[in-house]
Formats: sequence, structure tokens, C-alpha cells
Amino acid sequence: MSIITLVTDFGSQDFFVGAMKGVILSINPQAIIVDITHEIPAQDIEAAAFNLLATYKDFPAGTIHVAVVDPGVGSTRRPILIECGRQFFVGPDNGIFSWICEREESCRALHLTNEKFFRHPVSATFHGRDVFAPVAAALACGISLQELGDEVDNFVRLNPLKPIVAGDGRINGRVIHIDRFGNCITNLTRENFSEELAASGAALSINDRQISSFRKFFSEPATNADELFCIAGSAGFLEIAACNSSAARVLHAQRGDEVALMLDRL
Amino acid sequence: MSIITLVTDFGSQDFFVGAMKGVILSINPQAIIVDITHEIPAQDIEAAAFNLLATYKDFPAGTIHVAVVDPGVGSTRRPILIECGRQFFVGPDNGIFSWICEREESCRALHLTNEKFFRHPVSATFHGRDVFAPVAAALACGISLQELGDEVDNFVRLNPLKPIVAGDGRINGRVIHIDRFGNCITNLTRENFSEELAASGAALSINDRQISSFRKFFSEPATNADELFCIAGSAGFLEIAACNSSAARVLHAQRGDEVALMLDRL
Amino acid sequence: MSIITLVTDFGSQDFFVGAMKGVILSINPQAIIVDITHEIPAQDIEAAAFNLLATYKDFPAGTIHVAVVDPGVGSTRRPILIECGRQFFVGPDNGIFSWICEREESCRALHLTNEKFFRHPVSATFHGRDVFAPVAAALACGISLQELGDEVDNFVRLNPLKPIVAGDGRINGRVIHIDRFGNCITNLTRENFSEELAASGAALSINDRQISSFRKFFSEPATNADELFCIAGSAGFLEIAACNSSAARVLHAQRGDEVALMLDRL
Repeated sequence: MSIITLVTDFGSQDFFVGAMKGVILSINPQAIIVDITHEIPAQDIEAAAFNLLATYKDFPAGTIHVAVVDPGVGSTRRPILIECGRQFFVGPDNGIFSWICEREESCRALHLTNEKFFRHPVSATFHGRDVFAPVAAALACGISLQELGDEVDNFVRLNPLKPIVAGDGRINGRVIHIDRFGNCITNLTRENFSEELAASGAALSINDRQISSFRKFFSEPATNADELFCIAGSAGFLEIAACNSSAARVLHAQRGDEVALMLDRL
Repeated sequence: MSIITLVTDFGSQDFFVGAMKGVILSINPQAIIVDITHEIPAQDIEAAAFNLLATYKDFPAGTIHVAVVDPGVGSTRRPILIECGRQFFVGPDNGIFSWICEREESCRALHLTNEKFFRHPVSATFHGRDVFAPVAAALACGISLQELGDEVDNFVRLNPLKPIVAGDGRINGRVIHIDRFGNCITNLTRENFSEELAASGAALSINDRQISSFRKFFSEPATNADELFCIAGSAGFLEIAACNSSAARVLHAQRGDEVALMLDRL
Repeated sequence: MSIITLVTDFGSQDFFVGAMKGVILSINPQAIIVDITHEIPAQDIEAAAFNLLATYKDFPAGTIHVAVVDPGVGSTRRPILIECGRQFFVGPDNGIFSWICEREESCRALHLTNEKFFRHPVSATFHGRDVFAPVAAALACGISLQELGDEVDNFVRLNPLKPIVAGDGRINGRVIHIDRFGNCITNLTRENFSEELAASGAALSINDRQISSFRKFFSEPATNADELFCIAGSAGFLEIAACNSSAARVLHAQRGDEVALMLDRL
């Protein structure tokens, strides 16, 4: 019995996700299919990469994660399978799994070349249904990795997650995700910034605002009148939140916005 | 084999729901997970309470319902488990299950204190993943209630569902939910108002409009030109609907709006 | 073990879909329930018909598809079950399955009359929960078709999918669906229009625009500056797409818009 998760930008109003599930269950009726999200903004590879990064460790060993945000579908971009962290990741070679590989110690990548395991005819527009779903289902049936394709030693990588330690006493990070509540998730962590550092004068700078308050949980009574505060988020990153409001709205923040941690004020 | 349902305000664009499912399946791969809805408006405890009330009886005995609309996450609000109606309810002690307890004859409440069954480290912001999901999965594995926590004799209750019989021949109710089609679900029932009472001169008053028409089903041919009508809704409550339109829009209605049944016109 | 798929216009913010699943699992805990979509626009029978048409063949023989877009709920419109293509289709008799029947060689239709298999009391507003879900679950339990109702030889049919070959060298089609990316799916196919015909001077006309470019996949490098192009879509129909944009927005297109293939320019 295998778990197959799905992350896509297909939305929920069309037949796309249903088609992937039909293909999987036709090949492997025992598969347990779990939707992570299908509401990734269209063609937003980084949003998919973040959401999968934030949750893959909650699934048991052997889980197969299928991620399809695939602007290059039909082109020469390769379909790949990555094995790392005792799990499997199936999707387009466009960086969608690279933050997981950045975090895990070692990973093994395959170019999915064996068309025997594809749905035929293979369309040029829907590899989620025709390539990734059937390969994941085959893998869940126990097909070995070497039957699915050829090992490769390179794959596309996104801009790394690690923030950059600048020479001038700054750590330069960025907003990597904005969640439904408007919390701005940064690529900084508790190792970079804490109550203690804030007490010593350090602050986060984003979109011309300085933030040096911390809260442990969202409804924690404030010890000051600061509208914006930092919180250790559930995905393992430092988040910027606003009192009873959307930090993204208060800050006019978008994913990718720079976040500078100014330690030089220490 | 146990059914675990989920009701949350997590939306479907983030990893939150996927993380809860990963935690459940890591503990209990046999669990059948059913999404009731994740589109509860952010922090809207009453909307979650209504939706769970409207459907829990459709599930078999032994079902475990996990509801996470949790503005107090991380604070001292207690995590609880309620057993009633031969089912189990797991979530924050903020009233989210109180309408079910109001309806069922007896219920038993536990304060979930045994951290052995939590996911560690327990974050201060995501108890859906770290407390409620793993406890539900443990319960589905057969862990006994007394292992999970300590019985308590009180829990938070919402404003009761029962409409108020006023002295002046009125019954005062309210809109408790507005569905996707704009139907306004009230806390009145068929026992309060019917075609017979309407024929005798009784009427519903809401937002300066009087409603005394009834229809059995939405497309029933009208016997009058009334734009608004009452209908016995599928959740067991009287609903206000509009001909080929949204009653909420016609009435500028919001949840919580007062609905007065004026029997004194009889 | 049976697969039951669901297509509805119930949205995901209310308890409706959860209630259907509870009813199914109460009758048949072994059922594998697959959501195709619940985001069909309210009362839009054609949108449901299209999405089911586009994916039913991806499911294995024996799958039971439940489709509930049901403006006539509670009226005299019949609940039906159709068996065709070695699958089963359960829902209101309003044309929702007629495009599948148009495509399959033969089909058998039942009027669902045996109330023994309904959920009681049967509401006048929610047959998805009270009629279609329990009948599908009973069928998944092995109940025979003749126990469920009476065979009938007619059922409601939508405007046929086949485009019309006009006398003047035109083929008249229409937009049958617009997907999340704004692609306009027509009822024309590759048999109607191709690169070869375009090279000979044929063109698609829609909303005062002429389209004669083709691409194999969305990111294919353009050989011309045309903003709009045709593509063989994954649902088996010809789609109109726009470079890095929404064709529907560029064309101000809506479902139902006429698409004329002008072969007379050959």
C-alpha cells in the first residue's frame, strides 16, 4: 500500500486532477492518493517547491510525491524522478524539488525515459496525466527505479533557500511564501534572528519597515504596540505577521521581496 | 478501519491540510480521511460549528471528526476531545463542537494532556498538525480515551442554537449560515414556522423585509410574485431563498442577522 | 472495491460534499471516493457534462460516476442511472451524461425508483445526499441494476457536441469550456482543422478574430508573431490559447461563443 501525494497548479474547477487520479487508480487501485494542494498559482514553480518542502517530512518513508507545475510541458524539459530522504519525487525537471535536495544529504535523480510506463497517446500538454501519474502508480506497484529511466547526475536547481550573509553585517533573505492569512514566510530561521538579538538592537527590514518584536503564537498578548511581529512558523521558517491583520497587506509584500536582517545595529 | 473527517479554515492553497494528512497516515495508514471543508472563513468558529453540525450524523458510529478553527492556538486554550452521539470530536476548546453537544443527549469531554500522542516538537502555531491530527490518528489506532487525557466537566459553549421565544408573541432567531448559493440558513425550524402559520398571517421579518411564502423545492413554480421564500433546508433548518437569485444579496444579509418570526399577527 | 467519483456544483465551502461522502461510507466503507470537481459554476449542467466527458475514460471499468448539478431538484425530473462504456453514471435526468452517451456506442438507462436505497427522509433540496450518493453506494455494494429502478428508453439530451457542417464551406462549432488558464476548448477536433489546412488558407473565426497558427505545446517557440494559436488539447478537442496569456481574456470569450472554421478560403 503506497501513498501518492499531488501538488499542482491545476486548480479545482477542471477535470485535470480527477484525470490524474483515474490514471493512478487504473494502474494501482491500492494507492492512497493525498492532495497537498492544487491551488499553486499558475506556473509558479517556487510556490509548489515551498509547499512540498514544508510538508514532505510529515509523510512516511516510501511516499511518492507528484508535483506538476510545468510551464515547459511538451518541450525538451525532462521528466524526472528524485529519490531522497527515503521518499520519491516525480515531476518535471524545472527545479520544483531542488529545495528538498538542498536540505537532504544525498539524492539520486532519474530521467524518466521508459515510455512503457506512460499513458498513451502521450499528449503534449498534460504530462501530469500522461507521464507523471502513471509513473508514480507504477512505482507504487513495485516497479524498480532502473526500469523507469536512466540515472542522471544533474538537474535544474532554483535560487537556493539559504539566506546570504553579506559583508556589512547584514543577512539578506527574501519572502518565499505568503500564506492564506497573509503571513509572510521568509527564508530566515530562528538561527538567524531571535528575541535576544532583537533586544540587542537587531531588526528585520522589509519594504521600508523595521520589525523587532517577537511573539510565540498569534494571539499572544502584545507587550508593545507594534503592528508587525516575527513568529517561528510551522514550516520551520521565520514569518512576519500582523496583529489581527494580513502582514502582506500591511507591508504591500509579495513573494520575492527582500528581507534584510540588520545585525550591524548590535 | 476508521474514518477521520477534517473541517478547517486552512484553505486549499497552502500545505496545511496535506501536513495533517501526512501526520495521520504516518501513524495510521488505514485511516480513511474525508475532507468536509477547509474553506471556513479565517477564524470563524461558528461557520465551522454549523458545517459540522449539518453533516456529522451522515457518518457512521465511531467516526472521528477533527475541527481546527483555532484563533487561540498556542495560548492556554485547551485541546479537547468530546465523545457524543457515538462519535468523537477533536479540536480546540473554543465552542466549535458545542452545537453538537446541545443537540445530543449526553457527552463526555477530555482535556488532551498526554503529549506522548502529539507530534514533536509541538509548534505554537499549528496544533492541527501537531496535536489534533496525531491524537485523532492514535484514537483511530485504538488508543483508549483515558490514555489521551483527563475527563473534564466543562467546555466552552457558543451562543445556543435554539431561537428565543419572546414575550410579545415573537420568536427571535438569526441567520446562522449563508451557503454558496446565497441561501440564508436560520436557526428556526419547521416546528417554528410553516405554510399553515403563514396562511394565518404569521411572517418572518429580516432586514426590513417580510417573508411569508413557502416552497418545497427551489424550482417549484411560484403561486405568487414573491421574490423571497422559505424552504425546509437540507441541514434541518428553515432557509430563506430567492427566486433564481441569492437571498443574501437581495437581503444584504450576513450571518448573525436577526430573523424575527412574528406570530402576533395571528 | 469500487471507485465512486463525484462532480458537483456544491463548491468546497459548505458541508454538502462531506455529507455525500458520509452517506456513501456509511453504506459502503470500502468505497474509494474520488473528487473530480465541486467547482462547477452553480447550475451549469454543460460545464459538468464537459468535465465528466473529459475524464471518465481515465477510470477503470466498473467505476461509478455521480454528477449532481441539479437545478430541478425536488421537481418531477427523474433520478437516473446510465450504464455505458462499462461504467455507471448516477444523477439527475437533465442531460448531464448525454455527451458521454453521444460518444459511446450503446447505453442503458434506468429511472431510479426504488426508494429502499435512498436516505430517508428524502429532502426536496439535496438529492446528492439523499438519492444519488446512497444509490451509488448500493451499486458499489453489488446491488443489481434491476433492483434499483426501471429501465427507460429515453433521457434528456443536451445540444449535441458534434459541430455542424454548413452548406457554405463552413464548419460551425462553439466554445464548450474555458479552463483555469483561459484556454478556450472548442467542440472541433484535429479531424476538422490542422496545420495543413491552415497552410492552405483555412482559419478559425471567433469573436472577429482569425486564428490560423498551431502549436504542439504551450511553450513551443512561435514561428510568427501571432498572439493566438490552436493546440490539440488534452480533452481531445481543439483549443484556442494565447501566448503567456488567457485566450478567453484576449478574445472576451465565453462558453457558447461561436467558432467558425472557414474552409471556403481554401
